[in-house]
Amino acid sequence: MKPYEDPNARLDEVTVATKPVFEGKIISLQIDTVKLPDGSTASREIVRHPGAVAVMAIHEGKMVLVDQFRQAMGRRELEIPAGKLEKGEDPLEAAKRELQEETGYTCGNIRLLHSFYTSPGFADEIIHLYVAEDLESGEASLDEDEFLELCELTLDEAQEAIAAGKISDAKTIMAVYAWKLKRLTGAFQL
Amino acid sequence: MKPYEDPNARLDEVTVATKPVFEGKIISLQIDTVKLPDGSTASREIVRHPGAVAVMAIHEGKMVLVDQFRQAMGRRELEIPAGKLEKGEDPLEAAKRELQEETGYTCGNIRLLHSFYTSPGFADEIIHLYVAEDLESGEASLDEDEFLELCELTLDEAQEAIAAGKISDAKTIMAVYAWKLKRLTGAFQL
Repeated sequence: MKPYEDPNARLDEVTVATKPVFEGKIISLQIDTVKLPDGSTASREIVRHPGAVAVMAIHEGKMVLVDQFRQAMGRRELEIPAGKLEKGEDPLEAAKRELQEETGYTCGNIRLLHSFYTSPGFADEIIHLYVAEDLESGEASLDEDEFLELCELTLDEAQEAIAAGKISDAKTIMAVYAWKLKRLTGAFQL
Repeated sequence: MKPYEDPNARLDEVTVATKPVFEGKIISLQIDTVKLPDGSTASREIVRHPGAVAVMAIHEGKMVLVDQFRQAMGRRELEIPAGKLEKGEDPLEAAKRELQEETGYTCGNIRLLHSFYTSPGFADEIIHLYVAEDLESGEASLDEDEFLELCELTLDEAQEAIAAGKISDAKTIMAVYAWKLKRLTGAFQL
């Protein structure tokens, strides 16, 4: 039997060289040289990231958000709790850890909604987005360089916060879409 | 009258130094030193990006996607048409340009759905996501180092592609959520 041939495999690029540029605490940067489908070469600026988790946690009909300063944006914004994966850490455990550390909440029920790339054009960061329910409140335990404030919004308030630009990042907007879908169909998942 | 005081303004960080690390064709990297709310300092690795546009284009009940290789992911994936902003370019014009260049489609109707940060923890990239309707097909005009294939999916097929990991980036998953919402409520917007 003839093996399956992916008709678009001809679009694939092949790495011919990788030059490390920067190794940081959180990200690293490299320049890859790739061979294009037409045989020519091109360079690609690639940010490496350990991956992250984010948690859509719903408590008494409200979404649990954190207000925190983001240096890349130059301002604060409201986001669902999130953080990077520690080395070798299981994403599900990381999601429970970040939720507890940032908000104090523990959860009776948590499951993966989507894993997605945030910026596939230049970064390999992948976010594992979880849905946490049956929350129980407790004491937060922030990292020493982490300063944030809890904020809980209804769906209407979350939609207003998006319209006002107070919620303005991909994972949190996606979470609000999923929450609205849950209200309409009974399921968060697409 | 006492001026309004933002109760969370105390969470703000202040930049005390910026060290350029890398200046590339698409991104640049800098290390900022920030003063934290408790007076101590911390360093932040920040990727600067010119911003991008993405277009959810619906043609005869199908979403227009492009299959392209992403070096950061090490594989191809299906995404809505997208590309970075040229210097000084209006995002709406860029959205029309990218749609035409990557897919050949021109549109009679286009509007902004959301502008969002992709990775606020380390990057300032903002994506302006547009909805384009009343499409008319034409000839694509790809950049010389751009190789991609058009792919049009129904909502069911797009949901299957997400489940199968063939659609796996934030902007495209968000677009599919918005499309599903449109089917349920008549509006893409949250």
